[in-house]
Amino acid sequence: MANTIPVLEIFGPTIQGEGMVVGRKTMFVRTAGCDYSCSWCDSAFTWDGSAKNDIRQLTAEQIWTELKEIGGECFDHVTISGGNPALIKAIGSLVELLHSHGVKAALETQGSRYQDWFLKIDDLTISPKPPSSLMKTNFSVLDDIIETLIKEKRMAHISIKVVVFNDDDFEYAASVHERYPEVPFFVQVGNEDLTTIDNASLTQELLKKYEWLIDKAVAAKNMNDVRVLPQVHALVWGNKRGV
Amino acid sequence: MANTIPVLEIFGPTIQGEGMVVGRKTMFVRTAGCDYSCSWCDSAFTWDGSAKNDIRQLTAEQIWTELKEIGGECFDHVTISGGNPALIKAIGSLVELLHSHGVKAALETQGSRYQDWFLKIDDLTISPKPPSSLMKTNFSVLDDIIETLIKEKRMAHISIKVVVFNDDDFEYAASVHERYPEVPFFVQVGNEDLTTIDNASLTQELLKKYEWLIDKAVAAKNMNDVRVLPQVHALVWGNKRGV
Ligand code: SF4
Ligand code: SF4
Repeated sequence: MANTIPVLEIFGPTIQGEGMVVGRKTMFVRTAGCDYSCSWCDSAFTWDGSAKNDIRQLTAEQIWTELKEIGGECFDHVTISGGNPALIKAIGSLVELLHSHGVKAALETQGSRYQDWFLKIDDLTISPKPPSSLMKTNFSVLDDIIETLIKEKRMAHISIKVVVFNDDDFEYAASVHERYPEVPFFVQVGNEDLTTIDNASLTQELLKKYEWLIDKAVAAKNMNDVRVLPQVHALVWGNKRGV
Repeated sequence: MANTIPVLEIFGPTIQGEGMVVGRKTMFVRTAGCDYSCSWCDSAFTWDGSAKNDIRQLTAEQIWTELKEIGGECFDHVTISGGNPALIKAIGSLVELLHSHGVKAALETQGSRYQDWFLKIDDLTISPKPPSSLMKTNFSVLDDIIETLIKEKRMAHISIKVVVFNDDDFEYAASVHERYPEVPFFVQVGNEDLTTIDNASLTQELLKKYEWLIDKAVAAKNMNDVRVLPQVHALVWGNKRGV
């Protein structure tokens, strides 16, 4: 099992809806398992047991074969998401295989665990979780990760992203930005309604919340070098999965 | 007059709603004058004479003073837009002044004219206009501009963005991307309704159009290394000016 990756979904091509390469045409590979249990997790099925019968243990080669079957010639970028893919050592072999085919790799993790293959990810998003998640950031681990990434000159390939639901989260985001001022920094609106299927009203709700976050960032002089983004995919597709 | 810049609007801080630094907290300086007259120009007041009494000839220092008056300590990034700011030689002195204060500069132009100060812009968007604009791209000028930017190693600071309204525009975008494959490439949905004040229905219209553009890009194997974006500011604020 050491060389396999627990996979829950492979889909695309679609676009990346968040963060440093928002809008990028990409395939998605979603891995199972997380060491967190955020109160508002929009991928709880990756760790809460509800989809455990859908988990497949796949090798990097099997994942590549499936990506090609689904995506054909229509992709050159793969986003690995979770859960927390940083729990999985074998991701390194997948990233190498993608690169050998001229395909780039993006990955998001909360920054609770380091892997050597972080240094090979083309677009690495570290997304520490704010107070509303009810999780507690281990800053000594996070400091080590960021320090390594800076030392290894990965600045053009990394970013920090904090999801913000309320004022406390915004304070937390500001403190993370002040702690790592050299790292490209993104704040993103959270989605408070993960079950509605009324997309038009969800869109209005998300845009109202986005405007609130823009207003906060605009007024904060410790939040100048910052990018404020919505979840573009949630605006377009609401809570639908696999798009 | 050689050292002054014709200014129509100075406002912010707000966020950049488009392109390579979408979401970036920024101030805006809008210059007057354009050598194009795109059929769907959303800034026609910069060149159609309707705002000619609002044009002020300002020096770089005057612009900086006004930026500080309005933005205070709450910005470190200024976006220069138009019209076509590439018509104005004196922009170079503004960019230098901004840099001397530790402030970054972004600028968008259609690529019909080169200026030496292109090499100093932190986030330079070249946005050639597709057929629906009724303008004709001068590719010999554009080739020279892109070649210079590549030779001067500005790749981390530039992007090409094409606004797409219809299938012909999409073909044009693909041909531009194939012509300059090394340059980071963005396609963006056009706004077909520049007068409505019904923001909720405009949002739905823009998101429907955005989904159409995503579908086209996803299906096109000559459009893999591409980012597909909406105009985020139009989703939030509709056609309102000065936000
Ligand atoms: S870290 Fe991510 S996947 Fe894990 S519980 Fe939190 S939001 Fe969900
Ligand atoms: S180039 Fe830009 S400012 Fe000039 S007419 Fe076209 S859209 Fe308007």
